[in-house]
Amino acid sequence: METVKLIGTPFSFFTYRVIWALKLKGVNYEYIDEDMSKKSPLLVKYNPIHKKVPVLIHGDKTICESMVIVEYINETWQLNPLLSTDSYERATSRFWAKYIEVKSHNTWNVFCNTGEKQQNAIKESLEMFKTIEENALGENNILFGGENIGLVDIAFGGYSHWMEIIEEIVGVKLLDPHNFPRINKWIKNFKEVKAIKDNLPNRDEMFVYVKNSRERMLASP
Amino acid sequence: METVKLIGTPFSFFTYRVIWALKLKGVNYEYIDEDMSKKSPLLVKYNPIHKKVPVLIHGDKTICESMVIVEYINETWQLNPLLSTDSYERATSRFWAKYIEVKSHNTWNVFCNTGEKQQNAIKESLEMFKTIEENALGENNILFGGENIGLVDIAFGGYSHWMEIIEEIVGVKLLDPHNFPRINKWIKNFKEVKAIKDNLPNRDEMFVYVKNSRERMLASP
Repeated sequence: METVKLIGTPFSFFTYRVIWALKLKGVNYEYIDEDMSKKSPLLVKYNPIHKKVPVLIHGDKTICESMVIVEYINETWQLNPLLSTDSYERATSRFWAKYIEVKSHNTWNVFCNTGEKQQNAIKESLEMFKTIEENALGENNILFGGENIGLVDIAFGGYSHWMEIIEEIVGVKLLDPHNFPRINKWIKNFKEVKAIKDNLPNRDEMFVYVKNSRERMLASP
Repeated sequence: METVKLIGTPFSFFTYRVIWALKLKGVNYEYIDEDMSKKSPLLVKYNPIHKKVPVLIHGDKTICESMVIVEYINETWQLNPLLSTDSYERATSRFWAKYIEVKSHNTWNVFCNTGEKQQNAIKESLEMFKTIEENALGENNILFGGENIGLVDIAFGGYSHWMEIIEEIVGVKLLDPHNFPRINKWIKNFKEVKAIKDNLPNRDEMFVYVKNSRERMLASP
C-alpha cells in the first residue's frame, strides 16, 4: 500500500476539493500544512511549475492542480465513482468543471477588490451563477449529475461554504435564494453528503482568517 | 453508425485540435464552416454557453470546448489512444494540457497587441516556452508522451504551424531554435505525423487571413 500525502492550506477550497475526493474514496492520507507566505522547500520541490497547493503525493508520484488531482483520485480508487461510465456524460461533466474553473476567478475578484473592479466582478459572478442555474442544474437535480456526488459538485464545492462568508464580509448577497433557487438547493444537498459535512473548515475560524486576508490584500499597494 | 459533424472556422487551431483527433481516430465527419462575425443560429443552438467553435455533434449529442471534445473523441473511438492506460501518466498529460490552455492566451496577446502590452505578452510567452522546454519535453522525446501522439501534442499543436506565421507578421522570433531546441524538434516531429501533415491549413492562405485579422484588430478601438 503506497502512502498518500496531501500538501494544502487550511481554508483553501482548492485543497478541500482534494480532501473531499480522498474522503469519498475512503483513502487514508497524511495532511501537510503549507504556509503560502513562505513557500516551503517541500512545496517548491513537488510543484516547481506553479508552487501552489494542493499537491498530492502518492508513493513516488506527485500530482498538481486540484481538478487534475481529483480525476487522478477518481481513476485510482474505485469507491464512489465521480464520473459516469458514459463518455457523453463524462464530457458534459468536464465541460462544466472547466466552466467553473475558468469563471470562478470573478468571485475571487469580488472578494479582493472594491469600487468599480468589484462591481464588474459582481456582474460577472452573477452571470456565471445564472448560466449554472439555468443550464447545469436540472429542476429536479439533487446534485449536478443527479443523485450521486460527482466531478462538477467537487469543482463547484467551494461555493457551498465559502460563499456565505465572502458575502458577509464583503456585504453583498450574490446567491439570493429567490434568484438562484436551484443553486441554493444544491448547496443544502451538497453539505448533507457525509464526506462533505464531516470535512468542512470551521466557520468561525474561517471567517476570521478570510476577513484578515481581505484586509491585508486591500491594505497592500 | 451515428453521424459526426464539426462546426469550426478555417484557421482556428482550436478547430484543428478536433480535426486532428478525428483524423487520428479514422472518423468520417461533415465539416460545417462558421462565420464568427455573424454567429449562425446553428452555433448559438449548439453552443449556447460560449457561442464559440469548435462544436462536435455526434448523433444527438453535442460537445463543446476543444480539449473536452478531444477527450470525448479519445474515449469514443479506440484507434490511436491519446492518453496512456496508466492513471499517473494520464494525470501528467492533463496537467500539461491544462497548463497550455491557461498560458497560451499570452501568445494570443503577442499577436493582437503592440507596445508595452505586447512586450509583456512576449515575456510571458517565453516563460511558458521555457517551462515546457525544460519540464514537459524530455531530451530524447520525439513527441510529448514519447513516441506516440497524445493529448499534450494536440493541445500544443497550434504552436507547430501557427507560430511561424505569427512570428513573421509580428516581426518577433519567439521560438528561437538555439533557446528552444526541444520545442523546435517537437514541431518538426509533430508535423511529420501523417494525420497532422495531411491536415494543416494552407500556409499562404492562412498568412493572408491572419495578417488581415491582426490589422482589423489593431484598427478597431
